[in-house]
Amino acid sequence: MKIVLGSGAQHLKDEVIKKAINYGKEVLETEIKKFPDGEKYIRILGEGKEALVIQSTYNPQDENLIELLLIGDSLRERGFERLLAVVPYLAYSRQDRVTKEGEPISVRAIMRMLSLYYDELYVFDLHNAKTLEFFPKKATNLSPARAIAEYFNEKLGDGIILAPDKGALERAKAVAEILNLEFSHFEKKRISPTEVQMQPVNIDVKGKNVLIVDDIISTGGTMVKAANILRKMGAKNIFVSATHGVFAKGAIERVENAVDELAVTNTIPTPVSKISIVEDILRLV
Amino acid sequence: MKIVLGSGAQHLKDEVIKKAINYGKEVLETEIKKFPDGEKYIRILGEGKEALVIQSTYNPQDENLIELLLIGDSLRERGFERLLAVVPYLAYSRQDRVTKEGEPISVRAIMRMLSLYYDELYVFDLHNAKTLEFFPKKATNLSPARAIAEYFNEKLGDGIILAPDKGALERAKAVAEILNLEFSHFEKKRISPTEVQMQPVNIDVKGKNVLIVDDIISTGGTMVKAANILRKMGAKNIFVSATHGVFAKGAIERVENAVDELAVTNTIPTPVSKISIVEDILRLV
Repeated sequence: MKIVLGSGAQHLKDEVIKKAINYGKEVLETEIKKFPDGEKYIRILGEGKEALVIQSTYNPQDENLIELLLIGDSLRERGFERLLAVVPYLAYSRQDRVTKEGEPISVRAIMRMLSLYYDELYVFDLHNAKTLEFFPKKATNLSPARAIAEYFNEKLGDGIILAPDKGALERAKAVAEILNLEFSHFEKKRISPTEVQMQPVNIDVKGKNVLIVDDIISTGGTMVKAANILRKMGAKNIFVSATHGVFAKGAIERVENAVDELAVTNTIPTPVSKISIVEDILRLV
Repeated sequence: MKIVLGSGAQHLKDEVIKKAINYGKEVLETEIKKFPDGEKYIRILGEGKEALVIQSTYNPQDENLIELLLIGDSLRERGFERLLAVVPYLAYSRQDRVTKEGEPISVRAIMRMLSLYYDELYVFDLHNAKTLEFFPKKATNLSPARAIAEYFNEKLGDGIILAPDKGALERAKAVAEILNLEFSHFEKKRISPTEVQMQPVNIDVKGKNVLIVDDIISTGGTMVKAANILRKMGAKNIFVSATHGVFAKGAIERVENAVDELAVTNTIPTPVSKISIVEDILRLV
């Protein structure tokens, strides 16, 4: 199995190169540049029959997506017969339904596009797992739970894992089960006619370390609110994690000021992408 | 027939809106914006069964391409049954063959992508007309000859049309036949062991107005050379035109300094896109 790294995976390159050999894989050299007019030029050096193409599609999303398409064309042209796309962060995954008439289901269009060249698609912690059905071939949603659990194992001790809402409960559960810890989620409770407050459900956080996990952090507003409430309730150390750090401007600082530690995975490169999903990728096939 | 204009066709919007009614067509309103994380949001207002989607794919090429894909998804979702893509300038059209092993045929990948949602593809003056075959459905290469001929008709008088090389001869011929003028092309001639010079073939330019036409001007180097030679040979007014103004930095000034007038079509918006192909689009279906 050959490995190809696109522009959206360059932050994983050193670790992939270092560890690929342990998994019987070889990283192919690539030449990727832009022409003066803005068009992308790509060239893959080396041959093979099967390739794992790693390309995360964070900003600039559209460039990374078109590049993934072009890499697929190049490998097919070269005679590769089986192509697997590993897209740690899949752009447009939150545009997964029509909320106002006239909107596209953008993630569907992207998945169809990728299916032109790729036989299998692997993504991490898709915003809505049902979206996988839009990929007309084999699509797999990978969990970062192992990586997150390992990173926070010692820091948490006998702590608690919380999801910021019920929808994210499965994520908290996955991490909690690996560490054999208690888990729960926040829910919104009306505490006066004009005020709604988040509260953890059926769990006592007093004196406990707490890790809140979600799929995406963008403004960080929910995480800050949740942390402040835990602080008032007497929680010990408060940790925040997520799979994808799609941080809006200032979000990292806002969250870091409210918690003891913020750490996300490296599906997107950020200053707090301290948790690596590289081994989860290398283990795949 | 409904018309939808993407971000890469906003420079044509006023003229399209003004003239669409003469061709029995209606322009649909669109909402196109970027989310703070860089993802494109699009929404098309209005219904119908058939749509002509106009989207030129100049820089930022990849954004314009993905947007065209998303517009296709949105219109299918809304129940449109026949979608025509008009892409005045098709990005990646010069990446039409493998010149070094490991390269993609990028224009093929792009055409396949567009075929996911569009039944027909219309482009202007494709760099290599054979490329049309990569679109697996109906694809048409439109000529800007009528628009260029009309624009230069009076200025040229009984002038001459020249192609900068033999490969572009058909373009010169198409304009010349509309205006009933003579045409020819430049060829490279070795004038000493170390020197090669461009010369117009079998035609006397002395005292004549001359129009040089090509498909793309990028650095403008060839056009400047050709103009300087015509000047030495005693040509009267020298005009330069092309379908696509993919101008590199400084190219417009370089060409304008060497010729009497530079005018390209508006497949790409530039300060010298004085020739409109809008009526050619509206006439289509």
